[in-house]
Amino acid sequence: MYPKNAWYVAATPDEVQDKPLGRTICGEPIVFFRGENNVVAAVEDFCPHRGAPLSLGFVRDGQLVCGYHGLVMGCDGKCQDMPGQRVKGFPSIKAYPVEERHGFIWVWTGDPEQADKGDIPHLHWAESPEWAYGGGLYHINCDYRLMVDNLMDLTHETYVHATSIGQPEIEEAAPKTYKGEGDEVITERHMENIPAPPFWQAALEGNGLPSDQPVDRWQVCRFTPPSSVHIDVGVALAGHGGYDAPNDKKASSIVVDFITPETETSIWYFWGMARHFKPEDEALTERIREGQGKIFSEDLEMLESQQKNLLAYPERSLLKLNIDGGGVQARRIIDRLLQEEGRIPAASR
Amino acid sequence: MYPKNAWYVAATPDEVQDKPLGRTICGEPIVFFRGENNVVAAVEDFCPHRGAPLSLGFVRDGQLVCGYHGLVMGCDGKCQDMPGQRVKGFPSIKAYPVEERHGFIWVWTGDPEQADKGDIPHLHWAESPEWAYGGGLYHINCDYRLMVDNLMDLTHETYVHATSIGQPEIEEAAPKTYKGEGDEVITERHMENIPAPPFWQAALEGNGLPSDQPVDRWQVCRFTPPSSVHIDVGVALAGHGGYDAPNDKKASSIVVDFITPETETSIWYFWGMARHFKPEDEALTERIREGQGKIFSEDLEMLESQQKNLLAYPERSLLKLNIDGGGVQARRIIDRLLQEEGRIPAASR
Amino acid sequence: MYPKNAWYVAATPDEVQDKPLGRTICGEPIVFFRGENNVVAAVEDFCPHRGAPLSLGFVRDGQLVCGYHGLVMGCDGKCQDMPGQRVKGFPSIKAYPVEERHGFIWVWTGDPEQADKGDIPHLHWAESPEWAYGGGLYHINCDYRLMVDNLMDLTHETYVHATSIGQPEIEEAAPKTYKGEGDEVITERHMENIPAPPFWQAALEGNGLPSDQPVDRWQVCRFTPPSSVHIDVGVALAGHGGYDAPNDKKASSIVVDFITPETETSIWYFWGMARHFKPEDEALTERIREGQGKIFSEDLEMLESQQKNLLAYPERSLLKLNIDGGGVQARRIIDRLLQEEGRIPAASR
Repeated sequence: MYPKNAWYVAATPDEVQDKPLGRTICGEPIVFFRGENNVVAAVEDFCPHRGAPLSLGFVRDGQLVCGYHGLVMGCDGKCQDMPGQRVKGFPSIKAYPVEERHGFIWVWTGDPEQADKGDIPHLHWAESPEWAYGGGLYHINCDYRLMVDNLMDLTHETYVHATSIGQPEIEEAAPKTYKGEGDEVITERHMENIPAPPFWQAALEGNGLPSDQPVDRWQVCRFTPPSSVHIDVGVALAGHGGYDAPNDKKASSIVVDFITPETETSIWYFWGMARHFKPEDEALTERIREGQGKIFSEDLEMLESQQKNLLAYPERSLLKLNIDGGGVQARRIIDRLLQEEGRIPAASR
Repeated sequence: MYPKNAWYVAATPDEVQDKPLGRTICGEPIVFFRGENNVVAAVEDFCPHRGAPLSLGFVRDGQLVCGYHGLVMGCDGKCQDMPGQRVKGFPSIKAYPVEERHGFIWVWTGDPEQADKGDIPHLHWAESPEWAYGGGLYHINCDYRLMVDNLMDLTHETYVHATSIGQPEIEEAAPKTYKGEGDEVITERHMENIPAPPFWQAALEGNGLPSDQPVDRWQVCRFTPPSSVHIDVGVALAGHGGYDAPNDKKASSIVVDFITPETETSIWYFWGMARHFKPEDEALTERIREGQGKIFSEDLEMLESQQKNLLAYPERSLLKLNIDGGGVQARRIIDRLLQEEGRIPAASR
Repeated sequence: MYPKNAWYVAATPDEVQDKPLGRTICGEPIVFFRGENNVVAAVEDFCPHRGAPLSLGFVRDGQLVCGYHGLVMGCDGKCQDMPGQRVKGFPSIKAYPVEERHGFIWVWTGDPEQADKGDIPHLHWAESPEWAYGGGLYHINCDYRLMVDNLMDLTHETYVHATSIGQPEIEEAAPKTYKGEGDEVITERHMENIPAPPFWQAALEGNGLPSDQPVDRWQVCRFTPPSSVHIDVGVALAGHGGYDAPNDKKASSIVVDFITPETETSIWYFWGMARHFKPEDEALTERIREGQGKIFSEDLEMLESQQKNLLAYPERSLLKLNIDGGGVQARRIIDRLLQEEGRIPAASR
């Protein structure tokens, strides 16, 4: 179960260009397209004439034309036209609050009255020339909360990503979990005077730094509801202040994760990395994107297998260790939001 | 839901030659094979010995031999023989009334007592040397009535088949829908002095006529229950009488559609075209068959997506516009037949 | 439904080497791995930390390490260690009695208290230098009892395996079915003075005997619960005593079938052949294994289709002919075992 009164990342702008994009978000089939002045619109993917998906149609003059019999749908879910028909009395379909911002297309799947574009999170790195961003999209068959758990406990890197970002020092460093501003949950780890694992060796080299020296490493995972996890990550040459080291002594980035429920047991996983060094180096952006894509694909089998096991053993309760604290606290906040929406009883968890 | 007391096209004769053919029709797994004198027989696809599908067996001397342990099944569903066994007391399986006629194999899936081979529709073009026929078979995951709707409202050609038979003039010509003889429903459109779309340009050329001149075009869709739609289609050089123009001024055909339910949400779709010009030109037959096959394959994705959407939104009622009149009237007749079979209450629709 | 208090073949030793093997047996997801001294262990394929399948992990020092966050599982289902954690209070998972013996890995999926390794069947051919064995594993979507039926009525060879081991003389020889020692059910056929079918011609040649002379052929099928069928098969040059002929006048083998339920409608089918001639000839072993693998793959489509048909017609009762006697008696013993486990009522069937 997922909060519906929330802004979710639905797509990246390149996915919604000339053609409409059909995508199910929070159980609702939605078609995204560009209306007048290229402004993104989102309506139900259901033609009120005969029920065909509007996403099989095309865009003409900022309106969506059904590919079956030509009904013309407006950005507001109201029929605008249909050859040979008077459409005034035609039933409307749902239109969704939608916004293109910070390099993503955001949609609100709940009560439209409560949608406030001011609530879309500000992504400072997306608007600054000092940062570069590269990312991708995976479809994974798991509950979105399993991915939140995954990202709020990075000890899995040592096992799932052993050849790239994993190293035994991660699990030796106890995590510290605490509440941040508002509904933010933070869990962080700091490791000092350790070797850099391969991914970070490459990043150091990308920033013109030596890769064979001891480093200080940090991971600061920030969950914000409904289901984003952004992680400050990086390494600095040992003894220069770690997280607070000057830019020319470290390679630092933000791992960006938007986890959008498709159904109860599947997600659209938007992953990426915002980099705070050499932002102009596009080849480096692409190299990091490829490396990260490979690393993050290693989570897929694990998460899908975990989901299957949990469905097979619904009665089992799992352990909540200190390393799971970030996920546990994130789920508490999600539960509170579900209670506020009246979707689960207040006493439940 | 589909009428069961009806003749459905189950296969084409080439599909039932030396080997038996297993095919589910109206929810019933049936095996078709050729008995004595090559006469087609149809029985349940279930061996009464151990339940194996008889369609995995083979035909020997006009009887069907189970491929598992050799039970010999007769055309009447009675066991004829089995090595080392006395089969007199063996239970019989259902035999279906079946007939090979007009280039198709017809089966009756309802009460055998009510099966009258005289009710198999007469296809005049199938028995005349002045006509040529070519066609094919598609399996589509949709309710058979969605395909009836599709064929009774050809405005979709402008959108689904934009590059071949579609043209904006179709939706500008209001359709006329009325009842024909018996349970026939007719919906027709006539367009005058218009350019011929690519498919019809090729047909005109096939008939030795110029393709760059204005034409009169017609589409006369005839639904007959349970689920056939035959469409008189053609173009004539403008001003020669349209539908009634002499043969040397037009290219005219019948689009042949037999829509046979496999399950509630899947069909065997037998499509083809009977051509009333140059019947001896086999290369032309093949060219038209290929062109039509390509065009009709364009409907598949739309119909399967429409079906999924309708299953996802079972409570929505769709629009019934004037262009939908043919489909609406056809469904009324189907509903009456279902009422007569006692499958839906008389008051329902 | 399958007996759970039974030893089932779960795997062959080569499947459980360096890496753990995840396999569902009798509905239970199990992970097999080698603990200390390479002794095989079997525990639930479910990490008590977050529910990930342990089979995605790895083996280190005779313990199974979860591939997600590094929990270390012992052979007894008790957590041994986890980085940064005290594991004493961690919940255990089920450990299964398991034994490597006679070239197979056996598992007991029922009440561990009742598991007695002395009940694992003794396979004399597996421990004797006079015999050679080759085999394989198929996954088939059918109830395990359909495969027992299949193997206890070899008249199907004439139809399913017509080009290799089938011949009309099989169905002409009436089978004799009777109870053997304990819960053994035996059904046997003897054919005299017949031509050898292709598979046996090759076997005769493999044993240095002529293949174009009349032979006596035998098939002695032995069912032992829960679901093994071992078949004494062979041909002897005609007139030398058939089954009792001296070794240099015959080619004789045991067809080995262990049928292990995965779910109610799927099996792990371990098939093979133990050969009592030229045991040192490894090329012959491989040739026979390939031939048998091809033959046994012919049963797959039939059994899976039969299963689908039986699910579609659950109310139909099948015939129980004399040729089905072996399967019928085997099912009676299975039913008695199910009654003893309290899984079906004593009065049932």
